[in-house]
Amino acid sequence: MSLDLSHTIELEPAFHDLDPMDIVWHGHYVKYLELARCALLSRFGYDYPQMRDSGYAWPIVDMRLKYVGMVSYGQRIRIRAEITEWENRLRIDYLISDAVSGRRLNKAYTIQVAVSIETRQMEYVCPPVLWQRLGVAP
Amino acid sequence: MSLDLSHTIELEPAFHDLDPMDIVWHGHYVKYLELARCALLSRFGYDYPQMRDSGYAWPIVDMRLKYVGMVSYGQRIRIRAEITEWENRLRIDYLISDAVSGRRLNKAYTIQVAVSIETRQMEYVCPPVLWQRLGVAP
Amino acid sequence: MSLDLSHTIELEPAFHDLDPMDIVWHGHYVKYLELARCALLSRFGYDYPQMRDSGYAWPIVDMRLKYVGMVSYGQRIRIRAEITEWENRLRIDYLISDAVSGRRLNKAYTIQVAVSIETRQMEYVCPPVLWQRLGVAP
Amino acid sequence: MSLDLSHTIELEPAFHDLDPMDIVWHGHYVKYLELARCALLSRFGYDYPQMRDSGYAWPIVDMRLKYVGMVSYGQRIRIRAEITEWENRLRIDYLISDAVSGRRLNKAYTIQVAVSIETRQMEYVCPPVLWQRLGVAP
Repeated sequence: MSLDLSHTIELEPAFHDLDPMDIVWHGHYVKYLELARCALLSRFGYDYPQMRDSGYAWPIVDMRLKYVGMVSYGQRIRIRAEITEWENRLRIDYLISDAVSGRRLNKAYTIQVAVSIETRQMEYVCPPVLWQRLGVAP
Repeated sequence: MSLDLSHTIELEPAFHDLDPMDIVWHGHYVKYLELARCALLSRFGYDYPQMRDSGYAWPIVDMRLKYVGMVSYGQRIRIRAEITEWENRLRIDYLISDAVSGRRLNKAYTIQVAVSIETRQMEYVCPPVLWQRLGVAP
Repeated sequence: MSLDLSHTIELEPAFHDLDPMDIVWHGHYVKYLELARCALLSRFGYDYPQMRDSGYAWPIVDMRLKYVGMVSYGQRIRIRAEITEWENRLRIDYLISDAVSGRRLNKAYTIQVAVSIETRQMEYVCPPVLWQRLGVAP
Repeated sequence: MSLDLSHTIELEPAFHDLDPMDIVWHGHYVKYLELARCALLSRFGYDYPQMRDSGYAWPIVDMRLKYVGMVSYGQRIRIRAEITEWENRLRIDYLISDAVSGRRLNKAYTIQVAVSIETRQMEYVCPPVLWQRLGVAP
């Protein structure tokens, strides 16, 4: 049985996400990634409030987005987020596609590391709470 | 001698503040007001970090903006903020104008009240720390 | 038979809408109002793309928000938008409330006027296209 | 004589850029990059309005940010942007550092390609207008 560490959300861009070219400004995709990431982590009971309660902040330390197609107003998009690394850092890969045609629009990843809220020190290995929540072995 | 409780900043809108009509999206003016308000309060040593250290949060409870003219990319604007009430609540009036022509673009106000960070209770009279910082009598 | 010119949406604030007090930053409510307004106008076939196609931009000229309660992460909120004026200007009233308890969190309005995209002149009476779409008499 | 295709700006983060950890939310760095990029391109007379007038949009097709340190309220930061590719695509490298200590906070790049506004086709070689403005040979 394979472990499914992915989650998919759908949304339509807001008017305030559009730029003068009448397409979504590239920086707003970072918000879409976050919405998908939070929905994914929430599914495992380890979204922002639970992270904080577990004593760790999980800042993004690396993020890359490759834009293939533009997103317009009224266009329904699908954002799939999947956890692909959890041992020393939390890596999530994203695929944004058109919800109707399935056409790829954006490919991205984010990498987070655990930082102890108390000591403000970065952890070089992910804390066990992550593995417990995800149901994975390190 | 008259007391000057005002401060003026200047800025040019960022590209990411523009909407499909090639003008600043109306919601971003709220950020411009905040930049002017923080600069004003900072002048009196009572910006966000000092508010927090004094034991009070100062949430906005009322805000109104009247838009007279549009703001375009490359247009230099001036935001004047002035404290006009400080007894029971902190009211700041704003005037946004074109920095070159002086033409009025927006008139706004914000009203904040003190909330004790410890008790989460709203204060019905502004705490004396505000008056001390502003150099005013209640 | 009474005419229903209202629409209600529900949402949960995004993590990127939170401020250092762990509540939604007051300026982001303007986005929530817009989401409800666009959903309402879309229901009548007169959202942003149809406005543009009809030859009019509808800039916000007046906006007021009164904040009664704070919004936290994970809190489901309901935003009700209702068109209350359509003769000379388009006025929409909003009520934001907690989706579970029904407690009021914010009361707001926005006022828009029609501006001809071709002449850039403001219309002192709303163009008939608005009334046709809403199914109202001026 | 070496060609200098770089530009540096300084800024302090706005209160509305802070997240619940009291640091700048990672997505807002994209805005800082854009401010530095626009200032750089403006220096060469090829910022957004001139791009549009030259018949080209220059969408971001690839963007990467590596976060080394956090940015706090009141912290003055320096963003250096430098054009490092201009033949087939426009690549800009960024370094964000603390303006006082010089400590590195973020390293990033963006890659843009020219898209003809008329044909909506991507150009596989940068249009000569870019080279003319930058004063470079392809």
